[in-house]
Amino acid sequence: MLLNIIETLGIISFVISGVMVAMQKKLDPFGILIIAFVTSTGGGTLRDLLLGVRPIFWLIDTSVVYTIIITTVVAIILRRYLKVLSKSLVLFDTIGIALYTIAGIEKSLAASLNPIICVAIGILSACFGGVIRDILCRRIPVIFKKEIYATACIIGGSAYFGLLYLIPNRNNIINIISILLIIIIRILAVRYKLQFPSIYAKAKTSS
Amino acid sequence: MLLNIIETLGIISFVISGVMVAMQKKLDPFGILIIAFVTSTGGGTLRDLLLGVRPIFWLIDTSVVYTIIITTVVAIILRRYLKVLSKSLVLFDTIGIALYTIAGIEKSLAASLNPIICVAIGILSACFGGVIRDILCRRIPVIFKKEIYATACIIGGSAYFGLLYLIPNRNNIINIISILLIIIIRILAVRYKLQFPSIYAKAKTSS
Amino acid sequence: MLLNIIETLGIISFVISGVMVAMQKKLDPFGILIIAFVTSTGGGTLRDLLLGVRPIFWLIDTSVVYTIIITTVVAIILRRYLKVLSKSLVLFDTIGIALYTIAGIEKSLAASLNPIICVAIGILSACFGGVIRDILCRRIPVIFKKEIYATACIIGGSAYFGLLYLIPNRNNIINIISILLIIIIRILAVRYKLQFPSIYAKAKTSS
Repeated sequence: MLLNIIETLGIISFVISGVMVAMQKKLDPFGILIIAFVTSTGGGTLRDLLLGVRPIFWLIDTSVVYTIIITTVVAIILRRYLKVLSKSLVLFDTIGIALYTIAGIEKSLAASLNPIICVAIGILSACFGGVIRDILCRRIPVIFKKEIYATACIIGGSAYFGLLYLIPNRNNIINIISILLIIIIRILAVRYKLQFPSIYAKAKTSS
Repeated sequence: MLLNIIETLGIISFVISGVMVAMQKKLDPFGILIIAFVTSTGGGTLRDLLLGVRPIFWLIDTSVVYTIIITTVVAIILRRYLKVLSKSLVLFDTIGIALYTIAGIEKSLAASLNPIICVAIGILSACFGGVIRDILCRRIPVIFKKEIYATACIIGGSAYFGLLYLIPNRNNIINIISILLIIIIRILAVRYKLQFPSIYAKAKTSS
Repeated sequence: MLLNIIETLGIISFVISGVMVAMQKKLDPFGILIIAFVTSTGGGTLRDLLLGVRPIFWLIDTSVVYTIIITTVVAIILRRYLKVLSKSLVLFDTIGIALYTIAGIEKSLAASLNPIICVAIGILSACFGGVIRDILCRRIPVIFKKEIYATACIIGGSAYFGLLYLIPNRNNIINIISILLIIIIRILAVRYKLQFPSIYAKAKTSS
C-alpha cells in the first residue's frame, strides 16, 4: 500500500517536472502531455522491463494514466504559480527521484535480487524519466549538473539496506527515512552548492 | 491481414524518412541502413516490449528485414528524386505515424487493454521511431515542431474508438478512416501552419 | 565459457570508454560510475530484452556489477595514463563493439534466429551502449563519425556466418577470427582514414 502511495507521489512529481520543462520549450498542450507521460512513466517502465514484471505497471492500471492527465491539466492551469517557483523544478525532480529510487529497490527486492543490483535498478528507474525528458527537450541532462544527484540516490539506496539490517521488520519507516535522506542531501547540495571533492583539480595540478 | 499491410506500409514510410534524414547527415550506406532500421522498427519494438508480445515482430519475420534493406537500397538509388521532393520527409513521416498509431491501438486492443491506454501505446509506438532517428541524427525531434503532431495522433486514436462504438463490426473501414484522418490533419496543419491555440501568449500578457 | 570471457572483456572495454568520456565531461565519481554502467550494460540489456532472455544478464550475476565498479575505480585511479593514450578511446570502443557483436550473434543463434536477424541484433547490441554514452554526454555519436564503424560490424558478422558454413564445428576459432576482423577493419579505417566510397560526391556533381 505504501509502495502505491510512493509510486503515485513519484508520478505526480515527475509529471510536474515534465510540464515545467515542456512549457519552457513552448510545446502545445498535447506535446506537454506526452512529455509529462514519458517523464513520469519512463523510469518505472524501464524497471518493469528489466525485472520482467508483467504487465508494465501503467498498462492495466488506468488510474496512473488519469493521474498523469489530471496533474498535467492542473499544472498547465496553475502554470503562473509554478513559474514563480522556478526553483521548484529541482524540488519536484528531487522528490520524484527519491520516491522512484526506493520504489525501484522495493520491487527489485521482491524479485529476490542482490542488494547492490537493487540499488542499481533503483537509481536507473529514478533517473531514466528525467533523462528522457531532458533529451527530448534538448536540455543538458539534470543528472550531469554538478550538484550531487546520483550520489544522493546511491547514499539513500545504501542507507535503505543499512536500515533494513538494523530494523528488519519496520519497512515503512525505512522507506520514509531513505526517501527523506535522498531529498535532504540533494536539496542541501543544490542550496549550498555542495559538490563531490573534485578528482579533476588534482589532475590539473599534476599534469 | 490488413494489420500486416498497415504495418508494412508504416515500415516503408519510416525507412524512407530515415534514409532522407541520414543522407542529410552524409552517413555512409551502412550508417543509412542502421538509421533506416532503427527508425522503422523502433516504435513497433517498444510496443511489443510494453505489451509483452513475444517474439518482437521483426525477430522471426525476415520479410521485415528484407523490406527494410530493399527499401533502403531503392531509396538511396532514387535519392535525387527524394531530394526534389524535400517536403516529402514530412509526408512519409506522417504516413508512418498514422499507420503505426492504428497498428499500435489494434495490437493493444488484442491484449484487452483499456481504450485510453491503447491510444497511449499507439502514440508512443508511432512517435518512438522518429524520435530515435532525430536524436541519433541530432535534429530537433520532429515531434516538437510547432505543427500539430501529437495532436493528430490523439484525435485519430480517439476517432478510432468513437467509430468502433458506432460501427462495431467494420474494423477495416474504421482503420482506414482513422489513418486518413491523422494524415489529413497533419498535412493540413503543416500546409496551413495550423497550431494549437497558444497557452503562452496569454501567460505573456498577464505576467 | 568463451562467450562469458568475450562478454566480460566487452564490458571492461566499454567501462573504460565510458569512464574516459565521462571524465572529459568532468562528471563526479558517481556520475562516472553511472555512465560506465550504462555504457557497458546497455547493449547487452537491449539484446536480452529483444530476445526475451530472462533474467537480463546482469540481474542475477553480481560479478558483472563488481567488474564494472572495480574497472571504473581502477580507470579513475589510472586516469593520467588513459589521458596520454587519447587514441585509446577508439581502441576500447572498438574492442567493445567487436566482442559485443559476436556475443550478440551467438545469443541470437542460441534462440534459433535467422542469420540476418542475428547480425542485426549483434550490431544493435554492439552499438547501443556507445550510443547511450554519447547521447548522455552530448557528444556526436561515434557511430556517425566518418570512419567505417557499422560497416566493420556488418562485415565481421557476415564473416562469422561464412566461417560457420565452412568450419561448422570450430566455434571458438570462428569467434576469435570474427572479433579480430572487426577490430582490424575498424583500426585500419581510423588509422588510414578509410571511408566508404561516398554516395554524395556523385550527387553533388550531377545536381
